[in-house]
Amino acid sequence: MTNVIIPPDFSDVLAAYERIKNRVVHTPLLRNDVLDERAGRPVFIKAECLQKTGSFKYRGASNRIMHINPHDYPGGVVGFSSGNHAQGIAAAAAEAGVKAAIVMPEDAPGVKTEGVRYWGAEVVGYDRATDDRETIARALAEERNALLIPSYDDPDIIAGQGSVGVEIAEQCKGAGISLETLACGAGGGGLIAGIALAMNELSSKTNIYTVEPDGFDDHRRSFLAGEKVSNAPDAQSICDAIMTREPGTMPFEINKKLVKAGLVVSDNEVKEAMRFAFRYLKIVIEPGGAVSLAAALKGKVPGNGPLCIVATGGNVDPTAFAQILSE
Amino acid sequence: MTNVIIPPDFSDVLAAYERIKNRVVHTPLLRNDVLDERAGRPVFIKAECLQKTGSFKYRGASNRIMHINPHDYPGGVVGFSSGNHAQGIAAAAAEAGVKAAIVMPEDAPGVKTEGVRYWGAEVVGYDRATDDRETIARALAEERNALLIPSYDDPDIIAGQGSVGVEIAEQCKGAGISLETLACGAGGGGLIAGIALAMNELSSKTNIYTVEPDGFDDHRRSFLAGEKVSNAPDAQSICDAIMTREPGTMPFEINKKLVKAGLVVSDNEVKEAMRFAFRYLKIVIEPGGAVSLAAALKGKVPGNGPLCIVATGGNVDPTAFAQILSE
Repeated sequence: MTNVIIPPDFSDVLAAYERIKNRVVHTPLLRNDVLDERAGRPVFIKAECLQKTGSFKYRGASNRIMHINPHDYPGGVVGFSSGNHAQGIAAAAAEAGVKAAIVMPEDAPGVKTEGVRYWGAEVVGYDRATDDRETIARALAEERNALLIPSYDDPDIIAGQGSVGVEIAEQCKGAGISLETLACGAGGGGLIAGIALAMNELSSKTNIYTVEPDGFDDHRRSFLAGEKVSNAPDAQSICDAIMTREPGTMPFEINKKLVKAGLVVSDNEVKEAMRFAFRYLKIVIEPGGAVSLAAALKGKVPGNGPLCIVATGGNVDPTAFAQILSE
Repeated sequence: MTNVIIPPDFSDVLAAYERIKNRVVHTPLLRNDVLDERAGRPVFIKAECLQKTGSFKYRGASNRIMHINPHDYPGGVVGFSSGNHAQGIAAAAAEAGVKAAIVMPEDAPGVKTEGVRYWGAEVVGYDRATDDRETIARALAEERNALLIPSYDDPDIIAGQGSVGVEIAEQCKGAGISLETLACGAGGGGLIAGIALAMNELSSKTNIYTVEPDGFDDHRRSFLAGEKVSNAPDAQSICDAIMTREPGTMPFEINKKLVKAGLVVSDNEVKEAMRFAFRYLKIVIEPGGAVSLAAALKGKVPGNGPLCIVATGGNVDPTAFAQILSE
């Protein structure tokens, strides 16, 4: 069986936006005088940490699950995720009355595994160093007659995440802001692919950049190489949410056309951004959710006009956060 | 000279709302499934911690300062405050091109004194235990030919804070929410007085409650006594923002008519609420800003219908916050 899945386009993003708009939090676009001063330009923060389940992942999961007939999948849905996609699936499945099981790394932050269990989903652990989560999840889905929901290599997931971009474009239009630049963290690249599809249509002059932590700059290097390249298997970072080995295939097809380049930040810059968000913005951002804020604060995002960054999630353990605040 | 100042009414609140609406952050009304479950009712959080300067105080200060002619006060403005009103004045004065000096307790959180200095205002320290801040501020204003801006005993301040209530009423109307109850922390009572004026007109069936920390329940006892009563001078709390000795005179004139009763929470309940806000809402709330969330989480707010609470501010030192997260 050939299984050709066509990447989403703008019409899919718009349809997803309409489909989920009454379920998702229309997250605010924040700004702050100190941030503008530090970054040397007007900066707008799309606060997806305030999204249901604490990250944008609920959007794509919700869009995907609203597209299935539960009778076709008596075993419900299965996902694999470091935590945010897991919570997104768990919440969306609970709302749709569908069972969910999530394959999660055994070292995932407790705040994320607890979030999944809160929504009544089952957590299946794996070892990040030795096991392949996708293989485990695929086997589980087959065994249970369940639908596997990928984290980013899926047109409905990408389109759902793209609703972030539609909201940004609408909010900027409403406030009379003409965005020169948008920067967003990338793991598999599904969010930025969805956002890029939206911006390409609704704000076509906006330059788009990925931001990744040191050691996980697969997008940056893939853009330069013109093809997907992988990170070293022993790379380490505090940014658990976006520690992927390589760009997702489908997102990369979109991103290589619509994203200008990839930027990189250090773990220390990420921590500084988390402290800044605590101190001045009064929002909680997890490490992986703070990379674009880190890039903005360090003046690493090209251009000097209005910049939008996406605070993608806020699921960080209190002990880890307290430690970072104290450094 | 008799100096009779008439308390504000709804028309003043509405005028303030119109005057400052393009300056203030139209803060979001957040909700959360876990919160609803814990509180046993739908709860909506007006997130004033996301306001400019990190608290609602910027609203009243801005409204007051937009009402003066800078030429009348060559010495600018003077305030006295534990920190949030100070930052509100400092920001509003800077925007109006007016000098500002603030009398602040020497034990005020560093995050608050730094916030004041960021806006270019002067900080004048005093000892919370031995000095009377109002006397110091009054002398300073006279000496400098500056305008003294009280924290709450002022019609423009109360009216400005009341813009929070106008926004809540509008947001609820837009979302089809019929608020049964609203609970809000009270120090001098200016915010809740302004909110009560707004709600009395725009959502007249909503029952309104103050929330105060143990030992600072002057509003609760004053409502019962039918007149202003004071707290013990040696009372202690972690809620630095609302440790006032007694209700403000003008706010109390309003609140005794429009507020149903006063509620009390412990410091430990406040800490639990701050941790909850970190964990589930992804917002930073300072101790004094978390009292109404604490009351909601503990089921202390009467009624079981839709409840709005106000997260009044988020200016808390990182070390204090890290400590509370770790407990």
